[in-house]
Amino acid sequence: MSTVKLAVIGGDGIGPEVTAEALKVLEVAAPAGVTFEQTTYDLGAERYLATGEVLPDTVLEEIRGHDAILLGAVGGKPNDPNLPPGILERGLLLRLRFELDHYVNLRPSKIYPGAVSPLANPGDVDFVVVREGTEGPYTGNGGALRVGTPAEIATEVSVNTAYGVERVVRDAFARAQRRPRKKLTLVHKTNVLVHAGAVWWRLTQQVAAEFPEVSVDYMHVDAAMIFLTTDPARFDVIVTDNLFGDIVTDLAAAITGGIGLAASGNVNPDRTAPSMFEPVHGSAPDIAGQQKADPTAAILSVALLLDHLGHPDAAGAVEAAAIADLADRTPAAPRRTAEVGDAIASRLG
Amino acid sequence: MSTVKLAVIGGDGIGPEVTAEALKVLEVAAPAGVTFEQTTYDLGAERYLATGEVLPDTVLEEIRGHDAILLGAVGGKPNDPNLPPGILERGLLLRLRFELDHYVNLRPSKIYPGAVSPLANPGDVDFVVVREGTEGPYTGNGGALRVGTPAEIATEVSVNTAYGVERVVRDAFARAQRRPRKKLTLVHKTNVLVHAGAVWWRLTQQVAAEFPEVSVDYMHVDAAMIFLTTDPARFDVIVTDNLFGDIVTDLAAAITGGIGLAASGNVNPDRTAPSMFEPVHGSAPDIAGQQKADPTAAILSVALLLDHLGHPDAAGAVEAAAIADLADRTPAAPRRTAEVGDAIASRLG
Ligand SMILES: CC(C)[C@H](C(=O)O)[C@@H](O)C(=O)O
Ligand SMILES: CC(C)[C@H](C(=O)O)[C@@H](O)C(=O)O
Repeated sequence: MSTVKLAVIGGDGIGPEVTAEALKVLEVAAPAGVTFEQTTYDLGAERYLATGEVLPDTVLEEIRGHDAILLGAVGGKPNDPNLPPGILERGLLLRLRFELDHYVNLRPSKIYPGAVSPLANPGDVDFVVVREGTEGPYTGNGGALRVGTPAEIATEVSVNTAYGVERVVRDAFARAQRRPRKKLTLVHKTNVLVHAGAVWWRLTQQVAAEFPEVSVDYMHVDAAMIFLTTDPARFDVIVTDNLFGDIVTDLAAAITGGIGLAASGNVNPDRTAPSMFEPVHGSAPDIAGQQKADPTAAILSVALLLDHLGHPDAAGAVEAAAIADLADRTPAAPRRTAEVGDAIASRLG
Repeated sequence: MSTVKLAVIGGDGIGPEVTAEALKVLEVAAPAGVTFEQTTYDLGAERYLATGEVLPDTVLEEIRGHDAILLGAVGGKPNDPNLPPGILERGLLLRLRFELDHYVNLRPSKIYPGAVSPLANPGDVDFVVVREGTEGPYTGNGGALRVGTPAEIATEVSVNTAYGVERVVRDAFARAQRRPRKKLTLVHKTNVLVHAGAVWWRLTQQVAAEFPEVSVDYMHVDAAMIFLTTDPARFDVIVTDNLFGDIVTDLAAAITGGIGLAASGNVNPDRTAPSMFEPVHGSAPDIAGQQKADPTAAILSVALLLDHLGHPDAAGAVEAAAIADLADRTPAAPRRTAEVGDAIASRLG
């Protein structure tokens, strides 16, 4: 018998609804003898608007004591004047990623049955983006002078350390090694960002020597835009920096049939802190509380969570159930959020 | 009678071939009384490999004395060990853009007849990206410490000034004002890059007040990936920073049927130095000298050049001739580079 301490952050908008379905599925999917003990944390736009708190240090420390985190979505109404831009992103989402050292931001891209790709001929798409999660232009480094005047200057500093790059590159190689095609593509912009590019390039070459079976490819981020839309099937594992990863993974989600199905893991591979799993989509406040949201991305995030916790069979079963459900859908008859969760859970039951 | 002093940089690979066709078209398209006096500059990978020179200061000063620049493409064989990464990009292309203050990097996106979009349903695409060209992460600011050691740290600094942002935003609004839909979309990542994002956001709001007829929209760069692939027809004028613009314009070229048709202008709207026009594609050394390259993007760059020089009718005629040629093509019978140039020129003759 083992107990997994799970921190649950439903968040805002449709976040709590989709998270409820993810938990429903987790319950039936849990391997025999494994119990998930949940603690729910009320964080997000609503809490901020009510209390001014984004992520109190005491809450962060409590969350740190868990084995994993399941997050729904955070974010208030667009352009709410009471929500300063970036406050939840920087203060909650990114703070969790940075404080819990989620240096591997994992985003698989597959075309699931029934999903409609906007591409005419997407081919057989099955790749995973390993996005660096704790450095790059996301550190908040930089600042501004003479703000609000015609003489203003604002900078953003992308920070790239050998320490930070090597560990994420090694993780990406290890994932490529475990996949049938064993192919890794580094995406960067080494011809312009020469300082950062040199570190990424050098460490990719260096770590490649430890994985002789993995074939290595390089692509500028602008060229990656072209190949992702014209030949996405060529990719297997993509490794890239935090900002390029943000951009590439949304394109990847779009070409595979939508952000509504994209799951992600914010992973600390060294397990020095809990990893966090979340759908890529946002809080969609316009449809919140109406049972209209599709919980599939949240449920697929549970599969990533189970895999990370060392239960690949349970993870595979959740993914297979979600896929079977997708294959069975009739677009003309949309189901309620809870109906989708029930349907997937009952396939596992 | 007027004489336009044109600096011509054919460059490497297919660059000289496509430039020859562009010049052929320019000759017949030139408005009555306007003569183009050409000076050819031998710059690019070949010159660098032969002489070690990228862009000698004296050459730069000569080029500065011209009214406009037509560029083919520069770049040597991929992974040539004698070509340090970024040397031509930074030393030639970007140096020209920075020294000649090409702060408006203009990239129109249309689906031309016969062009095959990889999207299933692209709709009626006709937008232009106004990419900032002299700031952002392209300044070369940044550096590295303890290079090549496990303790290396490398930074890239994105520089954003009110001076630089306001002028490009105003140019984009003026372009939106002249277009039927009068719509401007700012693309940035204000929720993460808060320092730079604040300048872009504030100045967009501020300049908007001068253009009450233009409707303004904002999109994070990751969301732009989704909308560009699922609904590209919604865009009219996009304004964005140097790096986001690099990424967005390659995606835009891809979704409209390929980089092979994408033209661009590196524009100095204040005319304090010559503007430069170039196809977006690279030097394609693998097919160089074989008359296999499609010169259409170079020819469409001539249309942008004519428009910039104050000849909108001649520009429109070149674009119309290129479009008519595209509509007439039979994919099964590829033509030689010079045949395409001849065909487009003879439509104008
Ligand atoms: C909300 C935002 C801070 C976040 C990011 O930029 O990483 C999101 O876009 C994502 O991809 O998870
Ligand atoms: C070659 C490179 C420096 C350049 C850029 O990044 O601007 C190219 O990609 C472009 O878009 O013109």
